[in-house]
Amino acid sequence: MSFLDLWSTIESVGRHPGTGGYRRFAWTREDAALREWFASQCIARGLDLTTDRAGNQWAWWGDPDAAATAGRPGVVTGSHLDSVPDGGAFDGALGVVSALAAVDAMRAKGVRPQRPVGVVNFGDEEGARFGVACAGSRIVTGAMTPERARGLTDAEGVTMAEAAASAGYHPERFGRDEETVRRVGAFVELHVEQGRGLIDLDRAVAVGSSIWPHGRWRLDLLGEANHAGTTRLVDRQDPMLALATVIGAARASAEQHGCVATIGKLLVEPNGINAIASKVTTWLDARGPAESDVRAIAAAVSAAGGVDAVEESFTGDTAFDRDLAEQLAAVLGDAPVIGTGAGHDAGILAAAGVRSAMLFVRNPTGISHSPAESAELDDCRAGVEALVAVLETLVGEGAPA
Amino acid sequence: MSFLDLWSTIESVGRHPGTGGYRRFAWTREDAALREWFASQCIARGLDLTTDRAGNQWAWWGDPDAAATAGRPGVVTGSHLDSVPDGGAFDGALGVVSALAAVDAMRAKGVRPQRPVGVVNFGDEEGARFGVACAGSRIVTGAMTPERARGLTDAEGVTMAEAAASAGYHPERFGRDEETVRRVGAFVELHVEQGRGLIDLDRAVAVGSSIWPHGRWRLDLLGEANHAGTTRLVDRQDPMLALATVIGAARASAEQHGCVATIGKLLVEPNGINAIASKVTTWLDARGPAESDVRAIAAAVSAAGGVDAVEESFTGDTAFDRDLAEQLAAVLGDAPVIGTGAGHDAGILAAAGVRSAMLFVRNPTGISHSPAESAELDDCRAGVEALVAVLETLVGEGAPA
Repeated sequence: MSFLDLWSTIESVGRHPGTGGYRRFAWTREDAALREWFASQCIARGLDLTTDRAGNQWAWWGDPDAAATAGRPGVVTGSHLDSVPDGGAFDGALGVVSALAAVDAMRAKGVRPQRPVGVVNFGDEEGARFGVACAGSRIVTGAMTPERARGLTDAEGVTMAEAAASAGYHPERFGRDEETVRRVGAFVELHVEQGRGLIDLDRAVAVGSSIWPHGRWRLDLLGEANHAGTTRLVDRQDPMLALATVIGAARASAEQHGCVATIGKLLVEPNGINAIASKVTTWLDARGPAESDVRAIAAAVSAAGGVDAVEESFTGDTAFDRDLAEQLAAVLGDAPVIGTGAGHDAGILAAAGVRSAMLFVRNPTGISHSPAESAELDDCRAGVEALVAVLETLVGEGAPA
Repeated sequence: MSFLDLWSTIESVGRHPGTGGYRRFAWTREDAALREWFASQCIARGLDLTTDRAGNQWAWWGDPDAAATAGRPGVVTGSHLDSVPDGGAFDGALGVVSALAAVDAMRAKGVRPQRPVGVVNFGDEEGARFGVACAGSRIVTGAMTPERARGLTDAEGVTMAEAAASAGYHPERFGRDEETVRRVGAFVELHVEQGRGLIDLDRAVAVGSSIWPHGRWRLDLLGEANHAGTTRLVDRQDPMLALATVIGAARASAEQHGCVATIGKLLVEPNGINAIASKVTTWLDARGPAESDVRAIAAAVSAAGGVDAVEESFTGDTAFDRDLAEQLAAVLGDAPVIGTGAGHDAGILAAAGVRSAMLFVRNPTGISHSPAESAELDDCRAGVEALVAVLETLVGEGAPA
């Protein structure tokens, strides 16, 4: 099946007809459809499908347990299929589709891998519903405790445990999954670029060097609900004023520290035109080259809002394996090696000690987390070719077993 | 039935168990329950129940058409039963319950009205769902066109026409209702006070003098959705920054002009923690003694946000009938006469030429549009007594027909 034919089988799942954006959230009907799609594609290829304790899907070409026991654990590629609200088509899905296409291409070439090849679909990478990014890879590696994962709640107060159970999964199985982790000798995640680096470099594909430190904090700005027409300004406890200060402080502090900071989500209670708000909940997303700078932004925002910013997640600087990145760049004809401010499952695996790498495919708009996210077909094909070259190198085609 | 017994029959409808606040929105299941409650109370009292072209409910003691034709149109009291999101128990409901209690008290006293007495339940006073306050009274008086009313949409994109139709009403009947309006010789609305005026005056009941000019504007702050981690600050089109400026400008301009201004509602798209917003929609609610000052706030906010503030409603200064207010204050033992920043159906009727008055009942918290809204039972009873005295005066008890 050609890349385009394969791509067309998933393109419409979870796309909102009004916005053109994707709404593929963890443990929803759309998520179930995507998991079914993944399973059927793997089964059609004769891969052995398993689901780990975190609900991530893995499909193997070769026996990963025998190989791991023999000291030659598998080489895995893949990404995720969920999205941010009204996200683009490529973030996540491109990596999974390219992984399957790479398996097809390797077989078409007659490659006989000396290690098992795995394709993975990590669940809930975006954290759009429960607020914690890379939830699937965090649970399976033990970076997030099962207790915390089960207790996370969505905007309607549904816990992740309830959501997973209602999707037919068993959240009591959540937890670090040794059996799964030991199978992974190396992980390569292909992903659409989420900035303008490859546009400026005039290249189709790059290798990832590192992921910036990244923190998320929640701020609960409290006020007192009251009537918008009859409450004197001096009598008001209006959390919107604190919100305005917080927004300004986030931007100013990010500029000062050479980082990026975003206030992208707000929940207002009661959210009435003619009622002073009783509460505004907002989140700070901050990232930058240095951990201390990222934390300084959170401190500045706390001070501006007059409340403690509650840390919901923090991931320190994640450098991918330098030797591996250099090796892959060489395989790809001296491909550029670039860093990113975006978090990825590959970063979670790297932090857990898995030898990990990333490939980025050019995005002609430079825009991501938006329907404007894009990738040219030729660049997608170049991405699959690069992935094939990288996988062939890592599985030791032709090398003795 | 005592005031307290009557009050207890409606107290639980639409109350949210978590917040303790009320969620009684137009043309919902809760709204239907409230309308059924009103109808059953009126029928139990032998009042003649009708529904006007806007869906407001009227119940008559006496024949309003014969009286209007004879040049002695009726005296109406009542208010509304809908609420803001998580509103209090008294805003609206107190006026309707007191109206029914006043009818009971007049009958118990053997009053024989020389004019018909009407009790009204105006629909959708708060505008919580469709954004326009006093929708029921605006439609029935012609202050809002039926076309505009039918086309108003809620947060889910449901039009008022669709919502009304799904509640079993016929929105094609919307429009100024001459038959209904000519029946109303005078209208007295009793309402919980929404400020601290009566606390400071140490009185249970006041007469209303005027309603401040009041405008609502919508601002669509546009940006470009993009990734929170990979988009450089200089490349961002982030509408949150405009929002912060708008919030600050609303407060500063209100202070400058001696008015009140509120940013109480926000809708963010896509509202993701890790996505720069593509759009923030917000509303300005501004009120003050002078129309020019209120409009100046909207202009300042427009300038701050860099977009036109779209006027969704504007109601000029509404002075209630001065002679009537003085007459009622005298009847009530020199009751205080106070103005208010809150809009009411009585103001819409006054603007439409109906002789209108308001009675306010003390609110010991001074807080409204919140579960903290309150009224002491003794003050509620004093409100009913005042309403009885006022109605007796207006219906000309004992006067020749």
